[in-house]
Amino acid sequence: MSSYLFQNALLVTMNPGREVFRGNLLVVDDRIAAIQKNEARTEETLARTSAALPPPQRIEASAYILLPGFVQTHIHLCQTLFRNHAEDLTLLDWLRKKIWPFEAAHNESSMRTAARLGIAELLAGGSTTILDMGSVHHYHAAFEEAEQLGIRMVGGKCMMDAGDEVPPGLRETMEDSLRESAELMAQWHGAARGRLRYAYAPRFALSCSERLLREVGARAHSEGCMVHTHAAETAQEEELLLKTKRQRSVPYFKTVGIAGAHCCFAHGVQLHEAERQTLALDGTALAHCPGSNAKLASGIAPILELRRAGVKVGLGADGAPCNNNLDMFHEMRLAGFLQKLRHGAHAFPAQHIVEMATIVGAACLGWQRDLGSLEIGKKADLILLRRDQPHSAPSDEADIYAQIVYAAQARDVYLTMVEGRVCYQNGELVGLELEQMLARAKQELQQLLQRTDL
Amino acid sequence: MSSYLFQNALLVTMNPGREVFRGNLLVVDDRIAAIQKNEARTEETLARTSAALPPPQRIEASAYILLPGFVQTHIHLCQTLFRNHAEDLTLLDWLRKKIWPFEAAHNESSMRTAARLGIAELLAGGSTTILDMGSVHHYHAAFEEAEQLGIRMVGGKCMMDAGDEVPPGLRETMEDSLRESAELMAQWHGAARGRLRYAYAPRFALSCSERLLREVGARAHSEGCMVHTHAAETAQEEELLLKTKRQRSVPYFKTVGIAGAHCCFAHGVQLHEAERQTLALDGTALAHCPGSNAKLASGIAPILELRRAGVKVGLGADGAPCNNNLDMFHEMRLAGFLQKLRHGAHAFPAQHIVEMATIVGAACLGWQRDLGSLEIGKKADLILLRRDQPHSAPSDEADIYAQIVYAAQARDVYLTMVEGRVCYQNGELVGLELEQMLARAKQELQQLLQRTDL
Repeated sequence: MSSYLFQNALLVTMNPGREVFRGNLLVVDDRIAAIQKNEARTEETLARTSAALPPPQRIEASAYILLPGFVQTHIHLCQTLFRNHAEDLTLLDWLRKKIWPFEAAHNESSMRTAARLGIAELLAGGSTTILDMGSVHHYHAAFEEAEQLGIRMVGGKCMMDAGDEVPPGLRETMEDSLRESAELMAQWHGAARGRLRYAYAPRFALSCSERLLREVGARAHSEGCMVHTHAAETAQEEELLLKTKRQRSVPYFKTVGIAGAHCCFAHGVQLHEAERQTLALDGTALAHCPGSNAKLASGIAPILELRRAGVKVGLGADGAPCNNNLDMFHEMRLAGFLQKLRHGAHAFPAQHIVEMATIVGAACLGWQRDLGSLEIGKKADLILLRRDQPHSAPSDEADIYAQIVYAAQARDVYLTMVEGRVCYQNGELVGLELEQMLARAKQELQQLLQRTDL
Repeated sequence: MSSYLFQNALLVTMNPGREVFRGNLLVVDDRIAAIQKNEARTEETLARTSAALPPPQRIEASAYILLPGFVQTHIHLCQTLFRNHAEDLTLLDWLRKKIWPFEAAHNESSMRTAARLGIAELLAGGSTTILDMGSVHHYHAAFEEAEQLGIRMVGGKCMMDAGDEVPPGLRETMEDSLRESAELMAQWHGAARGRLRYAYAPRFALSCSERLLREVGARAHSEGCMVHTHAAETAQEEELLLKTKRQRSVPYFKTVGIAGAHCCFAHGVQLHEAERQTLALDGTALAHCPGSNAKLASGIAPILELRRAGVKVGLGADGAPCNNNLDMFHEMRLAGFLQKLRHGAHAFPAQHIVEMATIVGAACLGWQRDLGSLEIGKKADLILLRRDQPHSAPSDEADIYAQIVYAAQARDVYLTMVEGRVCYQNGELVGLELEQMLARAKQELQQLLQRTDL
């Protein structure tokens, strides 16, 4: 059983009082065992807390900010290989001309490499938990990579049994979709001591039959797992849906039984006020992806209105080809910029943005009892942020949340811990040989491109 | 006389043909002496080119992109110490409540530290040239720091002889403003073998008397130097100007003789179509600062309309307290996002954004003969970009401009050279002790805050 003592860090706790103080934090096994402010007789008390344990590994952290790990509520690991390969397109073109043909060309090996590369970027940038949507096939490889590299993941294979212009390699029958999902669920829901969870992942309303969606709605309820889908991302999508289903995304999903605290919808750019109320009343979470929404020109999601209505809003980088990084610092910064442009410079203080990236993100996944803040008894998912580079200096105690949102960058992450295990430290991903992985990624991409007609 | 041979790099030249190829680049003294594509008998020919010279220092660059250094067309080095200290304010409040009192509290020592910190961040992030607006006093310290650390700078002391709520420490008479400017010009215009240049820097129309502006317009013409000011940044500024001068920024500046290819206006968020035409006809350049405009909620500048009208548009990070980094990668990425949100996903290909950051930026400063592209005979202002990190992989030859704009980050800069001198390499700023500087910055900020009433 491992234990770590972070000493003299600046703790940005994100606890209910949003306390920020200098202190020590003790990790024992997978959880935070003790937290103490520096004025307390820390050493002594912490020593008592851990009296029965072997001495912890001490990490002198006075130069760092200690923060809960980021929770990204919408990611597509399977797309990481396609970074820089789908530029200057709107959503439906981007999917039909690039992303779907690419995904259809995945084999187990390219899927594994895409997942590994994405997880490496996420851990190195301080993201400890992700809600991930896979492609239709080979998703076990993503779970295996998450298991091995240590990230916390709620993931599921993508479901696509309907829709136009879906390549044969992705189009599946309802029966196959449900069977493959059930198999993955049986193997991975609760795996790795509970660090991995399954989520049904119907791609979006246009790519699924109504029968499939109703079945997903019912199974998720009875099996106690999440549903992760896209909703109201673009005007075009909402128009098509109105034409074919006579409903827009959010009411349609509710009709088929996909609504509630176990559901997380990505994007919501096009949400009307009544739909925002629906999400709030049902407890359905929304994943805001400002970088993706900007680059695909989908629009600016009404985040402040959603928050005001009481909707849980998390943050996510979406997939690498629409962004083109899986970087929570980029998303936080951009989320602030875009809402300030809509609502004025006073709007959306940085603290609210850090909340979205941590404790609210955890709530979007229904995992706030264990994740999203530095509190005794919670899982030891945390990061250390450096403050010793010109771009963030001078680093005093002034608006610490603004420092994190607007001045800090992914490169400032010094250490990332998930469930008490150090997954990344000082440029090194534990258990991963970087150079080898990058060479492999290049090779896998080349082979995948040869398997497509593009 | 030093010389360097960059071998086997991927050259993104930004030359008139926008050529991208793998090759070698020879620097002799302060200029690019030779460039050759890899298919040529490179070694032999380059050896002949440099036959009379001592052997160059060879830099194996096959892992890197070799790119012209970034030209930031609007920076306030003097504000770097105020990073994270002026959050959630609109422009005029931000100036009156925070930035002006802070600037008024500068002494020579704090000004020097602010400039040093800013230059360190800029060089480490690949910016080799800046157009900088100082504060009213102590600007020689910024020139001295630029001279020492090696960045290329067109800079000038800020001019403020009018306007409301200007603290006494910044308010000056017209005579003092012109005299101090003339002294700085005499000492620094053309200094450091031409690497440093002077630019008159009236803050904006509201903070200067008409007499001062007319004098600046006349002197800049006769002395052959630039004028650098803010224009049409916010609606409030334009309204105030209409009320007091019965003209908006651009026509007013033209009236007082500030227009033409030697002028660069920052922001231009509020520009009307007729004003865009005026800028285009006069050759006046515009510095786009998307991060600052978003964070201060000034709006989104009409960049594509300006470019279509034929206006030279550069990019700048503005000051650290409105952004909160001096990071060209952030600005490029955001410039793309914001225009895509306005004009659609197909708009504003990444190549145009890299042009703004390099060759067009150089043209904004009237320095395109020497700067902004990798061409034989131009100044050796260049950067090497790493491609060996997860966040930019897989790195193949696909859309190289998208890689630079959307996937690359400031941390990927491996080496920054200005005028043939390596200023930054692999985390080290040449001639600068980082830890000492950061400690000094913290201390200077604390003392400066004590000198204000805030």
